[in-house]
Amino acid sequence: MLKYSDRLDRMFHALADSTRRAMVERLVRSPASVSDLARPFAMSMPAIVQHLRVLEDAGIVTSEKVGRVRTVQLAADALTAPGAWIEEQRLPAERQLDRLGAVLAPDTTKEN
Amino acid sequence: MLKYSDRLDRMFHALADSTRRAMVERLVRSPASVSDLARPFAMSMPAIVQHLRVLEDAGIVTSEKVGRVRTVQLAADALTAPGAWIEEQRLPAERQLDRLGAVLAPDTTKEN
Repeated sequence: MLKYSDRLDRMFHALADSTRRAMVERLVRSPASVSDLARPFAMSMPAIVQHLRVLEDAGIVTSEKVGRVRTVQLAADALTAPGAWIEEQRLPAERQLDRLGAVLAPDTTKEN
Repeated sequence: MLKYSDRLDRMFHALADSTRRAMVERLVRSPASVSDLARPFAMSMPAIVQHLRVLEDAGIVTSEKVGRVRTVQLAADALTAPGAWIEEQRLPAERQLDRLGAVLAPDTTKEN
């Protein structure tokens, strides 16, 4: 439970930066080397690597080094947890209507 | 453009904390006074108010003071922007298949 919450903390924190979001947008298309990922940004390589580390710690990307090239790719479940959390909170009006429906027709729950 | 990106930064940052997410989960049910919101947390009132300020700065909640009671409610578009951003990035495999389809059947685009 706590672990899931910590993971959400890290994921939302990782997404709270436009450079990191741009990296995710790039990786949605295909895996990329660190230097390919760095190219669009006027940023030092240590800064790029630090951003990638935040994404990797959050479980949003994975990376693998072959020879001198580190290739970064989106993790399989990259955005499932934060997407699911947001989805659960959305449409509160609809959920309140559901509850109202349950109150108006309480027998329905007994049938399940 | 920049403004939208800044707004996403603030929203994701606001969600990167389990106390603030718990407040949102509470507010999905109904508006609440600040003291109602504070009740589940072993936290000083200034800390609670600070968390609410982060949510309000991000446009996730709004609040109104009537007499001595400040009531907090979820903003209408509370989670639309971060939800939409995540949705755009998801299912990269499906999007790559779409692109592949466009390459294999280039005439389809001309017909539109």
